[in-house]
Amino acid sequence: MNFRPTMLTAAALTIAVVALSQSTTQKGPVFTKDGDLVLPSGYRNWVFLGGPITPNGLNDGKALFPEFHNVYVELDNFRYYQKNGKFPEGTVLVKELVLTQVGPHPDGSLDSASGRGYFPSTLNGLDVMVKDSKRFGDTHNWGFFTFGHQAPPYKSVANVMSAGECASCHIAGVAKTDMVWVQYYPALTAKID
Amino acid sequence: MNFRPTMLTAAALTIAVVALSQSTTQKGPVFTKDGDLVLPSGYRNWVFLGGPITPNGLNDGKALFPEFHNVYVELDNFRYYQKNGKFPEGTVLVKELVLTQVGPHPDGSLDSASGRGYFPSTLNGLDVMVKDSKRFGDTHNWGFFTFGHQAPPYKSVANVMSAGECASCHIAGVAKTDMVWVQYYPALTAKID
Repeated sequence: MNFRPTMLTAAALTIAVVALSQSTTQKGPVFTKDGDLVLPSGYRNWVFLGGPITPNGLNDGKALFPEFHNVYVELDNFRYYQKNGKFPEGTVLVKELVLTQVGPHPDGSLDSASGRGYFPSTLNGLDVMVKDSKRFGDTHNWGFFTFGHQAPPYKSVANVMSAGECASCHIAGVAKTDMVWVQYYPALTAKID
Repeated sequence: MNFRPTMLTAAALTIAVVALSQSTTQKGPVFTKDGDLVLPSGYRNWVFLGGPITPNGLNDGKALFPEFHNVYVELDNFRYYQKNGKFPEGTVLVKELVLTQVGPHPDGSLDSASGRGYFPSTLNGLDVMVKDSKRFGDTHNWGFFTFGHQAPPYKSVANVMSAGECASCHIAGVAKTDMVWVQYYPALTAKID
Protein backbone atom coordinates (compact mmCIF):
# COMPACT_ATOMS: atom_id res chain seq x y z
CA MET A 1 0.00 0.00 0.00
CA ASN A 2 1.39 3.38 -1.02
CA PHE A 3 0.29 6.49 0.83
CA ARG A 4 1.42 10.00 1.55
CA PRO A 5 2.45 11.00 5.03
CA THR A 6 -0.64 12.57 6.44
CA MET A 7 -1.09 15.14 9.13
CA LEU A 8 -2.18 12.26 11.33
CA THR A 9 1.12 10.46 10.85
CA ALA A 10 3.06 13.65 11.51
CA ALA A 11 1.01 14.28 14.63
CA ALA A 12 1.60 10.73 15.83
CA LEU A 13 5.34 11.09 15.36
CA THR A 14 5.31 14.39 17.23
CA ILE A 15 3.39 12.86 20.10
CA ALA A 16 5.81 9.93 20.17
CA VAL A 17 8.80 12.27 20.46
CA VAL A 18 7.14 14.31 23.18
CA ALA A 19 6.21 11.15 25.06
CA LEU A 20 9.76 9.86 24.90
CA SER A 21 11.22 13.17 26.06
CA GLN A 22 8.86 13.17 29.03
CA SER A 23 9.90 9.72 30.20
CA THR A 24 13.48 10.51 31.01
CA THR A 25 13.11 9.42 34.63
CA GLN A 26 15.01 6.30 35.49
CA LYS A 27 13.28 2.94 35.15
CA GLY A 28 14.46 0.31 37.59
CA PRO A 29 17.72 0.15 39.54
CA VAL A 30 21.12 1.19 38.19
CA PHE A 31 24.16 -0.64 39.56
CA THR A 32 27.84 0.23 39.18
CA LYS A 33 30.22 -2.44 37.84
CA ASP A 34 31.11 -3.16 41.47
CA GLY A 35 27.48 -3.88 42.33
CA ASP A 36 26.84 -0.67 44.24
CA LEU A 37 23.47 1.03 43.72
CA VAL A 38 23.30 4.45 42.07
CA LEU A 39 21.05 6.97 43.83
CA PRO A 40 17.59 6.63 42.21
CA SER A 41 16.39 9.66 40.26
CA GLY A 42 12.93 10.95 39.48
CA TYR A 43 11.27 9.49 42.57
CA ARG A 44 9.60 12.81 43.35
CA ASN A 45 7.24 11.89 40.53
CA TRP A 46 6.69 8.28 41.62
CA VAL A 47 3.60 7.04 43.44
CA PHE A 48 3.56 7.88 47.14
CA LEU A 49 2.61 4.76 49.11
CA GLY A 50 2.48 6.15 52.63
CA GLY A 51 4.39 8.09 55.25
CA PRO A 52 4.51 6.39 58.65
CA ILE A 53 5.97 8.60 61.36
CA THR A 54 8.14 7.53 64.28
CA PRO A 55 8.92 10.87 65.93
CA ASN A 56 12.03 11.32 68.01
CA GLY A 57 9.71 12.71 70.69
CA LEU A 58 8.06 9.29 71.06
CA ASN A 59 11.34 7.35 70.89
CA ASP A 60 13.54 8.83 73.61
CA GLY A 61 15.01 11.23 71.08
CA LYS A 62 16.57 8.37 69.15
CA ALA A 63 14.11 7.10 66.56
CA LEU A 64 15.62 4.60 64.14
CA PHE A 65 14.05 6.53 61.29
CA PRO A 66 13.27 10.09 62.33
CA GLU A 67 10.60 11.05 61.58
CA PHE A 68 8.29 10.74 58.56
CA HIS A 69 9.25 7.83 56.30
CA ASN A 70 7.76 8.66 52.93
CA VAL A 71 7.76 5.67 50.61
CA TYR A 72 7.64 5.90 46.80
CA VAL A 73 7.41 3.37 43.96
CA GLU A 74 7.29 3.74 40.18
CA LEU A 75 3.80 3.76 38.65
CA ASP A 76 4.30 0.58 36.61
CA ASN A 77 5.34 -1.37 39.71
CA PHE A 78 2.46 0.11 41.71
CA ARG A 79 -0.01 -1.09 39.07
CA TYR A 80 1.68 -4.50 38.98
CA TYR A 81 1.24 -4.87 42.74
CA GLN A 82 -2.41 -3.84 42.54
CA LYS A 83 -2.97 -6.59 39.96
CA ASN A 84 -0.72 -9.35 41.31
CA GLY A 85 -0.29 -8.74 45.04
CA LYS A 86 3.49 -8.65 44.79
CA PHE A 87 6.18 -6.46 43.28
CA PRO A 88 7.94 -7.41 40.01
CA GLU A 89 11.66 -8.01 39.59
CA GLY A 90 13.53 -4.71 39.38
CA THR A 91 11.16 -2.86 41.69
CA VAL A 92 12.79 0.03 43.54
CA LEU A 93 11.21 1.35 46.74
CA VAL A 94 12.51 4.70 47.97
CA LYS A 95 12.02 5.76 51.59
CA GLU A 96 12.78 9.43 52.19
CA LEU A 97 13.03 10.64 55.77
CA VAL A 98 11.58 14.04 56.65
CA LEU A 99 12.08 15.78 59.98
CA THR A 100 9.18 17.44 61.80
CA GLN A 101 8.70 21.04 62.84
CA VAL A 102 9.89 21.43 66.43
CA GLY A 103 6.88 21.56 68.74
CA PRO A 104 6.58 22.59 72.39
CA HIS A 105 4.87 19.45 73.69
CA PRO A 106 6.93 16.74 75.44
CA ASP A 107 6.21 14.37 72.54
CA GLY A 108 7.53 16.94 70.08
CA SER A 109 4.13 17.69 68.59
CA LEU A 110 3.03 21.15 67.53
CA ASP A 111 -0.21 23.14 67.67
CA SER A 112 -1.34 24.34 64.27
CA ALA A 113 -4.52 25.71 62.68
CA SER A 114 -5.49 22.17 61.70
CA GLY A 115 -4.86 20.71 65.15
CA ARG A 116 -2.10 19.28 67.30
CA GLY A 117 0.26 16.93 65.54
CA TYR A 118 3.42 16.50 63.55
CA PHE A 119 4.26 18.63 60.52
CA PRO A 120 7.06 18.08 58.02
CA SER A 121 10.04 20.43 58.02
CA THR A 122 13.14 19.33 56.06
CA LEU A 123 14.34 16.31 54.07
CA ASN A 124 16.71 14.19 56.13
CA GLY A 125 17.78 10.97 54.46
CA LEU A 126 17.12 8.31 51.88
CA ASP A 127 16.93 4.50 52.06
CA VAL A 128 16.20 2.15 49.17
CA MET A 129 15.02 -1.43 48.64
CA VAL A 130 15.59 -3.23 45.32
CA LYS A 131 13.95 -6.50 44.30
CA ASP A 132 16.44 -8.66 42.40
CA SER A 133 16.29 -12.40 43.02
CA LYS A 134 19.67 -13.05 41.44
CA ARG A 135 21.61 -10.49 43.40
CA PHE A 136 19.71 -10.71 46.68
CA GLY A 137 18.33 -14.24 46.87
CA ASP A 138 19.88 -14.67 50.31
CA THR A 139 17.69 -11.91 51.76
CA HIS A 140 14.32 -12.93 50.31
CA ASN A 141 15.04 -11.32 46.92
CA TRP A 142 15.48 -7.77 48.19
CA GLY A 143 18.64 -5.72 48.69
CA PHE A 144 18.76 -2.80 51.16
CA PHE A 145 20.73 0.42 50.77
CA THR A 146 21.09 3.72 52.57
CA PHE A 147 22.18 6.94 50.93
CA GLY A 148 22.60 8.61 54.30
CA HIS A 149 20.45 9.84 57.15
CA GLN A 150 21.13 13.53 56.70
CA ALA A 151 19.95 16.52 54.69
CA PRO A 152 20.57 16.43 50.92
CA PRO A 153 22.73 16.04 49.00
CA TYR A 154 22.48 12.30 49.57
CA LYS A 155 25.30 9.90 48.73
CA SER A 156 25.54 9.23 44.99
CA VAL A 157 26.14 5.48 45.35
CA ALA A 158 25.64 2.99 48.17
CA ASN A 159 26.73 -0.57 48.78
CA VAL A 160 24.32 -3.22 49.94
CA MET A 161 23.67 -3.43 53.68
CA SER A 162 24.41 -6.66 55.51
CA ALA A 163 21.48 -8.97 56.19
CA GLY A 164 21.59 -8.09 59.88
CA GLU A 165 21.25 -4.38 59.31
CA CYS A 166 17.93 -4.17 57.44
CA ALA A 167 16.76 -7.41 55.88
CA SER A 168 16.49 -9.26 59.20
CA CYS A 169 13.79 -6.93 60.45
CA HIS A 170 11.83 -7.22 57.21
CA ILE A 171 12.22 -11.01 57.22
CA ALA A 172 10.94 -11.17 60.81
CA GLY A 173 8.03 -8.82 60.18
CA VAL A 174 6.88 -8.98 56.59
CA ALA A 175 8.42 -11.99 54.82
CA LYS A 176 4.89 -13.10 53.89
CA THR A 177 4.03 -9.83 52.15
CA ASP A 178 6.99 -9.63 49.77
CA MET A 179 9.19 -8.05 52.47
CA VAL A 180 7.18 -4.81 52.40
CA TRP A 181 5.02 -3.35 55.20
CA VAL A 182 2.07 -3.24 52.82
CA GLN A 183 -0.37 -2.95 55.72
CA TYR A 184 0.77 0.68 56.04
CA TYR A 185 0.24 1.52 52.37
CA PRO A 186 -3.53 1.64 51.77
CA ALA A 187 -3.25 2.89 48.20
CA LEU A 188 -1.87 -0.51 47.16
CA THR A 189 -5.13 -2.23 47.94
CA ALA A 190 -7.70 0.57 47.73
CA LYS A 191 -10.51 0.03 45.25
CA ILE A 192 -9.84 3.38 43.66
CA ASP A 193 -7.03 4.73 41.52
CA MET B 1 6.74 11.78 -1.60
CA ASN B 2 5.35 8.26 -1.77
CA PHE B 3 6.57 5.66 0.68
CA ARG B 4 5.50 2.44 2.28
CA PRO B 5 4.67 2.34 5.94
CA THR B 6 7.88 1.20 7.55
CA MET B 7 8.47 -0.59 10.81
CA LEU B 8 9.66 2.73 12.18
CA THR B 9 6.39 4.43 11.36
CA ALA B 10 4.44 1.55 12.82
CA ALA B 11 6.56 1.68 15.96
CA ALA B 12 6.04 5.44 16.26
CA LEU B 13 2.30 5.01 15.95
CA THR B 14 2.35 2.28 18.56
CA ILE B 15 4.32 4.46 20.94
CA ALA B 16 1.91 7.32 20.30
CA VAL B 17 -1.08 5.14 21.15
CA VAL B 18 0.62 3.85 24.29
CA ALA B 19 1.58 7.39 25.28
CA LEU B 20 -1.98 8.59 24.81
CA SER B 21 -3.39 5.70 26.82
CA GLN B 22 -0.93 6.46 29.62
CA SER B 23 -1.73 10.14 29.74
CA THR B 24 -5.39 9.85 30.46
CA THR B 25 -4.93 11.54 33.81
CA GLN B 26 -6.76 14.80 34.03
CA LYS B 27 -4.92 18.09 33.61
CA GLY B 28 -6.32 20.91 35.68
CA PRO B 29 -9.77 21.23 37.24
CA VAL B 30 -13.01 20.09 35.59
CA PHE B 31 -16.17 22.01 36.45
CA THR B 32 -19.77 21.11 35.73
CA LYS B 33 -21.97 23.66 33.96
CA ASP B 34 -23.27 24.60 37.40
CA GLY B 35 -19.76 25.40 38.63
CA ASP B 36 -19.34 22.32 40.80
CA LEU B 37 -15.96 20.61 40.79
CA VAL B 38 -15.62 17.08 39.40
CA LEU B 39 -13.61 14.70 41.59
CA PRO B 40 -9.98 14.92 40.36
CA SER B 41 -8.59 11.77 38.77
CA GLY B 42 -5.07 10.44 38.48
CA TYR B 43 -3.76 12.13 41.63
CA ARG B 44 -2.20 8.88 42.82
CA ASN B 45 0.47 9.61 40.23
CA TRP B 46 0.90 13.29 41.11
CA VAL B 47 3.78 14.65 43.18
CA PHE B 48 3.38 14.07 46.91
CA LEU B 49 4.13 17.32 48.76
CA GLY B 50 3.84 16.18 52.36
CA GLY B 51 1.66 14.41 54.88
CA PRO B 52 1.14 16.33 58.13
CA ILE B 53 -0.62 14.31 60.78
CA THR B 54 -3.11 15.55 63.35
CA PRO B 55 -4.08 12.33 65.12
CA ASN B 56 -7.42 12.00 66.86
CA GLY B 57 -5.41 10.80 69.86
CA LEU B 58 -3.82 14.25 70.20
CA ASN B 59 -7.05 16.16 69.52
CA ASP B 60 -9.56 14.85 72.06
CA GLY B 61 -10.74 12.28 69.55
CA LYS B 62 -12.04 15.00 67.27
CA ALA B 63 -9.30 16.10 64.89
CA LEU B 64 -10.50 18.43 62.15
CA PHE B 65 -8.63 16.31 59.64
CA PRO B 66 -8.00 12.85 61.00
CA GLU B 67 -5.26 11.83 60.64
CA PHE B 68 -2.62 11.98 57.89
CA HIS B 69 -3.30 14.73 55.34
CA ASN B 70 -1.44 13.67 52.22
CA VAL B 71 -1.16 16.50 49.72
CA TYR B 72 -0.62 16.01 45.99
CA VAL B 73 -0.04 18.33 43.02
CA GLU B 74 0.50 17.71 39.31
CA LEU B 75 4.15 17.60 38.20
CA ASP B 76 3.92 20.63 35.91
CA ASN B 77 2.52 22.79 38.71
CA PHE B 78 5.14 21.45 41.14
CA ARG B 79 7.91 22.49 38.73
CA TYR B 80 6.24 25.87 38.22
CA TYR B 81 6.26 26.49 41.97
CA GLN B 82 9.92 25.47 42.26
CA LYS B 83 10.77 28.04 39.59
CA ASN B 84 8.40 30.87 40.48
CA GLY B 85 7.55 30.51 44.16
CA LYS B 86 3.81 30.40 43.47
CA PHE B 87 1.30 28.11 41.82
CA PRO B 88 -0.06 28.83 38.33
CA GLU B 89 -3.70 29.40 37.42
CA GLY B 90 -5.54 26.09 37.24
CA THR B 91 -3.48 24.38 39.93
CA VAL B 92 -5.33 21.62 41.77
CA LEU B 93 -4.12 20.54 45.21
CA VAL B 94 -5.58 17.27 46.51
CA LYS B 95 -5.52 16.46 50.22
CA GLU B 96 -6.35 12.83 50.97
CA LEU B 97 -7.02 11.86 54.57
CA VAL B 98 -5.69 8.54 55.84
CA LEU B 99 -6.56 7.02 59.20
CA THR B 100 -3.90 5.50 61.44
CA GLN B 101 -3.57 1.97 62.77
CA VAL B 102 -5.18 1.82 66.23
CA GLY B 103 -2.44 1.86 68.85
CA PRO B 104 -2.56 1.09 72.57
CA HIS B 105 -1.00 4.31 73.86
CA PRO B 106 -3.23 7.12 75.17
CA ASP B 107 -2.17 9.30 72.24
CA GLY B 108 -3.22 6.56 69.81
CA SER B 109 0.33 5.72 68.78
CA LEU B 110 1.53 2.19 68.07
CA ASP B 111 4.74 0.25 68.72
CA SER B 112 6.25 -1.18 65.56
CA ALA B 113 9.58 -2.64 64.45
CA SER B 114 10.67 0.83 63.35
CA GLY B 115 9.65 2.50 66.60
CA ARG B 116 6.67 4.06 68.30
CA GLY B 117 4.54 6.27 66.15
CA TYR B 118 1.63 6.57 63.77
CA PHE B 119 1.12 4.24 60.83
CA PRO B 120 -1.37 4.61 57.98
CA SER B 121 -4.35 2.25 57.79
CA THR B 122 -7.19 3.22 55.42
CA LEU B 123 -8.14 6.09 53.13
CA ASN B 124 -10.72 8.34 54.73
CA GLY B 125 -11.58 11.44 52.74
CA LEU B 126 -10.62 13.92 50.10
CA ASP B 127 -10.43 17.73 50.03
CA VAL B 128 -9.36 19.88 47.10
CA MET B 129 -8.11 23.43 46.46
CA VAL B 130 -8.29 24.99 42.99
CA LYS B 131 -6.52 28.20 41.95
CA ASP B 132 -8.77 30.21 39.63
CA SER B 133 -8.66 33.98 40.01
CA LYS B 134 -11.85 34.52 37.99
CA ARG B 135 -14.01 32.08 39.90
CA PHE B 136 -12.50 32.54 43.34
CA GLY B 137 -11.13 36.07 43.45
CA ASP B 138 -13.07 36.73 46.65
CA THR B 139 -11.07 34.09 48.55
CA HIS B 140 -7.55 35.01 47.42
CA ASN B 141 -7.87 33.17 44.08
CA TRP B 142 -8.48 29.72 45.53
CA GLY B 143 -11.68 27.68 45.82
CA PHE B 144 -12.11 24.96 48.44
CA PHE B 145 -14.04 21.71 48.06
CA THR B 146 -14.62 18.53 50.02
CA PHE B 147 -15.54 15.20 48.48
CA GLY B 148 -16.33 13.76 51.89
CA HIS B 149 -14.54 12.74 55.04
CA GLN B 150 -15.19 9.01 54.77
CA ALA B 151 -13.78 5.91 53.10
CA PRO B 152 -13.98 5.74 49.29
CA PRO B 153 -15.90 6.00 47.11
CA TYR B 154 -15.70 9.77 47.46
CA LYS B 155 -18.39 12.10 46.14
CA SER B 156 -18.20 12.51 42.36
CA VAL B 157 -18.83 16.28 42.40
CA ALA B 158 -18.63 18.96 45.09
CA ASN B 159 -19.76 22.54 45.32
CA VAL B 160 -17.50 25.27 46.57
CA MET B 161 -17.28 25.74 50.33
CA SER B 162 -18.22 29.09 51.82
CA ALA B 163 -15.36 31.43 52.69
CA GLY B 164 -15.91 30.82 56.40
CA GLU B 165 -15.50 27.07 56.12
CA CYS B 166 -12.00 26.74 54.66
CA ALA B 167 -10.65 29.87 53.05
CA SER B 168 -10.75 31.95 56.23
CA CYS B 169 -8.22 29.71 57.94
CA HIS B 170 -5.90 29.80 54.93
CA ILE B 171 -6.26 33.58 54.65
CA ALA B 172 -5.42 33.98 58.33
CA GLY B 173 -2.47 31.59 58.20
CA VAL B 174 -0.90 31.53 54.78
CA ALA B 175 -2.21 34.40 52.63
CA LYS B 176 1.40 35.46 52.02
CA THR B 177 2.44 32.07 50.63
CA ASP B 178 -0.24 31.72 47.94
CA MET B 179 -2.74 30.32 50.47
CA VAL B 180 -0.74 27.08 50.86
CA TRP B 181 1.06 25.81 53.97
CA VAL B 182 4.27 25.57 51.97
CA GLN B 183 6.36 25.46 55.15
CA TYR B 184 5.18 21.85 55.58
CA TYR B 185 6.13 20.78 52.04
CA PRO B 186 9.94 20.64 51.90
CA ALA B 187 10.05 19.13 48.41
CA LEU B 188 8.82 22.46 47.00
CA THR B 189 11.97 24.24 48.03
CA ALA B 190 14.54 21.46 48.31
CA LYS B 191 17.60 21.83 46.12
CA ILE B 192 17.10 18.38 44.70
CA ASP B 193 14.57 16.87 42.34
